[in-house]
Amino acid sequence: MSFQPWLIAPISAIVSILIGLYFYRYVEKQDRGNQTMQEISDAIRTGANAFLKREYRTLAIFVGAVSVLLFIFLPTPIWQGEPIRNLTITLSYIFGSACSALAGYLGLTVATKANARVARGAQQGLNKAFPIGFRGGAVMGLSVVGVGLLGISVVYAIVGLSPTEEVPAVLAYSFGASALALFAKAGGGIYTKTADISADLVGKVELDLPEDDPRNPAVIADNVGDNVGDVAGMGADLFDSYVASIVATMILGAALAISGSYAYLEIPLVFAGVGIFASVIGSLIVRISKKGNPGNALNMGTYVTCAIFGGLTAITTYLMSYPWEIWGAATVGLVAGVIIGVTTDYFTSEDKTPVIKTAEASKSGPAINIITGFSYGLRSIIFPLIGIGVAAAIAYKLLEPLGGVSYGVFGISMAAVGMLSIVGLTVSNDAYGPIVDNAKGVAEQSGLSEEVVAVTDKLDAAGNTAKAITKGFAIGAAGLTVISLLAAFQEIASKAGHVAVFDIMNPLVLMGALVGVAMPAVFSAMLMLGVGRNAERMIAEIRRQFREIPGLKEGKPGVKPDYARCVDIATIGAIRELMPASVVAIAVTLIIGFVGGINALGGYLAGAILSSLLLALLMSNAGGLWDNAKKLIETGVHGGKGSEAHKAAVVGDTVGDPFKDTAGPSLNTMITVMSLVASLFAALIVQYNLIGFLGL
Amino acid sequence: MSFQPWLIAPISAIVSILIGLYFYRYVEKQDRGNQTMQEISDAIRTGANAFLKREYRTLAIFVGAVSVLLFIFLPTPIWQGEPIRNLTITLSYIFGSACSALAGYLGLTVATKANARVARGAQQGLNKAFPIGFRGGAVMGLSVVGVGLLGISVVYAIVGLSPTEEVPAVLAYSFGASALALFAKAGGGIYTKTADISADLVGKVELDLPEDDPRNPAVIADNVGDNVGDVAGMGADLFDSYVASIVATMILGAALAISGSYAYLEIPLVFAGVGIFASVIGSLIVRISKKGNPGNALNMGTYVTCAIFGGLTAITTYLMSYPWEIWGAATVGLVAGVIIGVTTDYFTSEDKTPVIKTAEASKSGPAINIITGFSYGLRSIIFPLIGIGVAAAIAYKLLEPLGGVSYGVFGISMAAVGMLSIVGLTVSNDAYGPIVDNAKGVAEQSGLSEEVVAVTDKLDAAGNTAKAITKGFAIGAAGLTVISLLAAFQEIASKAGHVAVFDIMNPLVLMGALVGVAMPAVFSAMLMLGVGRNAERMIAEIRRQFREIPGLKEGKPGVKPDYARCVDIATIGAIRELMPASVVAIAVTLIIGFVGGINALGGYLAGAILSSLLLALLMSNAGGLWDNAKKLIETGVHGGKGSEAHKAAVVGDTVGDPFKDTAGPSLNTMITVMSLVASLFAALIVQYNLIGFLGL
Repeated sequence: MSFQPWLIAPISAIVSILIGLYFYRYVEKQDRGNQTMQEISDAIRTGANAFLKREYRTLAIFVGAVSVLLFIFLPTPIWQGEPIRNLTITLSYIFGSACSALAGYLGLTVATKANARVARGAQQGLNKAFPIGFRGGAVMGLSVVGVGLLGISVVYAIVGLSPTEEVPAVLAYSFGASALALFAKAGGGIYTKTADISADLVGKVELDLPEDDPRNPAVIADNVGDNVGDVAGMGADLFDSYVASIVATMILGAALAISGSYAYLEIPLVFAGVGIFASVIGSLIVRISKKGNPGNALNMGTYVTCAIFGGLTAITTYLMSYPWEIWGAATVGLVAGVIIGVTTDYFTSEDKTPVIKTAEASKSGPAINIITGFSYGLRSIIFPLIGIGVAAAIAYKLLEPLGGVSYGVFGISMAAVGMLSIVGLTVSNDAYGPIVDNAKGVAEQSGLSEEVVAVTDKLDAAGNTAKAITKGFAIGAAGLTVISLLAAFQEIASKAGHVAVFDIMNPLVLMGALVGVAMPAVFSAMLMLGVGRNAERMIAEIRRQFREIPGLKEGKPGVKPDYARCVDIATIGAIRELMPASVVAIAVTLIIGFVGGINALGGYLAGAILSSLLLALLMSNAGGLWDNAKKLIETGVHGGKGSEAHKAAVVGDTVGDPFKDTAGPSLNTMITVMSLVASLFAALIVQYNLIGFLGL
Repeated sequence: MSFQPWLIAPISAIVSILIGLYFYRYVEKQDRGNQTMQEISDAIRTGANAFLKREYRTLAIFVGAVSVLLFIFLPTPIWQGEPIRNLTITLSYIFGSACSALAGYLGLTVATKANARVARGAQQGLNKAFPIGFRGGAVMGLSVVGVGLLGISVVYAIVGLSPTEEVPAVLAYSFGASALALFAKAGGGIYTKTADISADLVGKVELDLPEDDPRNPAVIADNVGDNVGDVAGMGADLFDSYVASIVATMILGAALAISGSYAYLEIPLVFAGVGIFASVIGSLIVRISKKGNPGNALNMGTYVTCAIFGGLTAITTYLMSYPWEIWGAATVGLVAGVIIGVTTDYFTSEDKTPVIKTAEASKSGPAINIITGFSYGLRSIIFPLIGIGVAAAIAYKLLEPLGGVSYGVFGISMAAVGMLSIVGLTVSNDAYGPIVDNAKGVAEQSGLSEEVVAVTDKLDAAGNTAKAITKGFAIGAAGLTVISLLAAFQEIASKAGHVAVFDIMNPLVLMGALVGVAMPAVFSAMLMLGVGRNAERMIAEIRRQFREIPGLKEGKPGVKPDYARCVDIATIGAIRELMPASVVAIAVTLIIGFVGGINALGGYLAGAILSSLLLALLMSNAGGLWDNAKKLIETGVHGGKGSEAHKAAVVGDTVGDPFKDTAGPSLNTMITVMSLVASLFAALIVQYNLIGFLGL
């Protein structure tokens, strides 16, 4: 047996995990700082672990229930087919969930260990602290891609992917990963914003305490939230896009494999493997001089990784004699990601018109601040959507000449793979953010000198800059991925005997599209109302503590708030609220399918994709913009901190919080899960649906 | 020559105009009240007329410029074809603009005359005041449908509608009506919210003055705004949906006429004519007893009109031997309109969960109020969209068996005609709102007794109740109309030789859809930022007057603010801001078409339709909800007026103002205009487009 090129995928995945472990050891070896710092860090870790444990326990029940359903019904009802195939699907699904949970757990563990160490490092200088933060983030980044790709490889190695299969095992694996990600994202998002909003509203607005003040009972919950929301949640989000894009491309490639060679099926694995190597190299070369700028270091890492990826894939394409058009499609995806990131940056940067004008509008009060920020958020949508649309069209047109429509669609999918190939590095940059943010919190709460806090500030600002480009990748990648998933759904339905054309003038497609458009809105609303309800409970508790604990407000030495109580409220509330929205999203997808059939379901997915891109962009950009408008005022313009303009800007920032950190980012995952559910059940739906049964 | 059934359209239109004139005379004959009331009413009328005059002058330039373009290029470039056909198109366009302007002018004139007379009537009792308000509104309602349908009839009588025509003259007529409506809606919307927000922020929030206080320099501008925004703007909006739905159905019917009889082409005219008779009868029977409930009277009028319409069209169908399926489609549309109205009502009613919860959330401050209201707004989207989708699917499936897809699409279009047939009455109910709102303003400013104000209050509350159902019709009708327009566009393109299938997996359709999704967002943003900019100017002026005019703040007798200055600022600002957004919407549509071709344009329209329905529903429902949450608190709950909860609710209400009265309602018109532009230029685009030229 000759060398199988796709084996580069599991090999690179294992390398990635090993380098991740090396970084983990590196972080662990660092000094944890003084007693207070250790205590704070321990409190954060304990809270985060408690949340994760409870969340995973709840999710285990869900995973168990879904497993039973999958075992009974997929790929064919168990009384019709071979139980062994159903068992394969079920095990792949459980394995996907487990991998997703593992990646989240690893990232969270190292993040909560790194924060105090970064703060301690900051006492010794920027160039000591920075690598601790970055490598802490890289553990998350490298384990996300490593675990994800290794998982796909294992399933593929054991079960394979037959071009005629209606329910491929890799699809079930991807569904497992995405469904878990959806809950993790929703739960983490609700947790973090409950704590953040409540801490701010009572602490900053009512009592005029500074950020991260140790007297605030919600301060530990707030820090825990950064970890469970931003680290574990965001990691799960990109984990799910990453896995889904590769799986969708494999399925589309398998369809080509019927006529052509098996190469198409395995190209996404090869490219993803090469991408991991690029990310590993990128993460190893990111460093900084004593006076260096951490933001530039992070961005440089991204650009270098992109270049390495472009070069390595070109070499691979040459060696393997792949069509150059495929390399072109992947590169188009990568370039589009960068362009989307740069244009997104414009709408949320402190030195650009939107933020400046919104800060100015704050002088006329909170209402005008909200209207202005919301309007710029609406305006920010167009460039990323053009970017996604143009990238998809170019990728399609590049590959179409190779053999028609299915090749064109495979091209779109390869653009998504290209965009996501360097996700190992982008997640590293992104996870760096909450780690240094927490480090700043630890530094302030343990009373380190102003100089040290300034160093952590500098580290923190860099995280925000790098985030813009990362976000561009996340949005673009989600867009292209769900388009490939829609194509995969169409492909699977046609294998099952229903050649579907999602023509918007078909009344079932149209009806589906109208319902689909509404779903992301309903889903976001459910999450945000959950945050609102939760925050009301927590605000009441914070007020109670300030009222009932003598000396707390005045900061009497030795008087401590009951942090654990707030951590508890956030945890219980998040667990309670994370289920309904996600279950509704999955259930409505199935209802549309089994009632309206494949055409209605295709329209539904298309409508949901368009609307979720719109809402996700609006919410994350408006949220980022309000945040920075507030920060701009805090630098002293329009009266600075404490002015009327500042109070108005705080209102905008608070509205933006659940926009950008709860609802907005969950939408990517929601639409991925919906698409995967549709694909999984496509063959069953072709057979059993009400519209077909009624002969309409 | 035997009797032509379609002549019922012009006949009923003339009857409608005559009854409108009769109501106009009725209103004019009423007593104008005392000196102060007359003065205030005169000031409002002068301001409104000044605005309209300036607006129409600006629009005349636009209409002139577009006329030149149409004359040169449509239906074929003038150097290729017969200039006489180009002249026909151009004249039809100008005629459409003129009809739209005329309807707006008539409605505005009577509304500004009716306000003081209603206030005077209120001194004599509810049953004296109510008919003045209702009949004032009915002038608008009956002239909208009368002028609109008469115009179509004239164009049809002179030019006809050949089934092979690529650019029918009726389409140019509809474009004229819609383009003018777009500007009127945008201009009026910016005007009214500039005045409203500014008056509230300085008057209510900063200085604690009551609503409509004569000391507020913006109070007259605010009253003028109600008229130019709500009466003229809203009339133009429904005028444009009404005309477009009939024209689209005629075009789709003409395609059927090739194979079948001419009846299909003329059925929409016949049904619209019957609808006008129903509306006229309905408007004549609306009355109220001395102790009656005006809200019930309005709703009863709507239900009776629906019933009469159902009955009359059934008789017509029987007499003319039309297929009963067509009657079924129209009825489905009508029923869907009512259902959508009722579900919409749930999200904005003071006694239902969404408003109650939002009012409660106000206790935690403005941010939580905004998050909660916005979330319920997101949630409100789903029922109307299901309503539109199901109505479209049923209407399609009813007619499809008659002869396939084109019959099915004609069915969707007939559902839109059905929903809009009773628009004469719904506009009457809607225009009643601002008239009695103004009457209340006049009563308060001229110091009438509390009893009289209470009567006007009761009249005003009824306006809000009736509005929910009207709004359901407006949204549903716009949705179905643009779907028919998309079908008409497809039909025209196929006549021109391009058989288009708007398959979302086609990369050009997809790219178009992604850009299309962004357009309504960009358009709304431009309008809202315009309101923000304008309001900043006006707030500065109001503050200046309170600062510089001695005794104004204290209400010293004889001291009056400079109302005219505020009216001027609102006018100039609105005129300046109304152009860019609308021109961008039209220009981008043409760019997409001439660059991407028919497929891209079809995707673009589909994306824009889905996204504009989403945003329009979100904005108008969230806006209405915030408004009523504030009103609920003003009844005394959560601390009542002046409490922290009330202040928070005022912020929400202010954010909602441009949502519900500027951006939201303009979106209906925007998407109609885009669809009409696409249809007008479809044949040219088939011949000349970049993608086709490049051979892609």
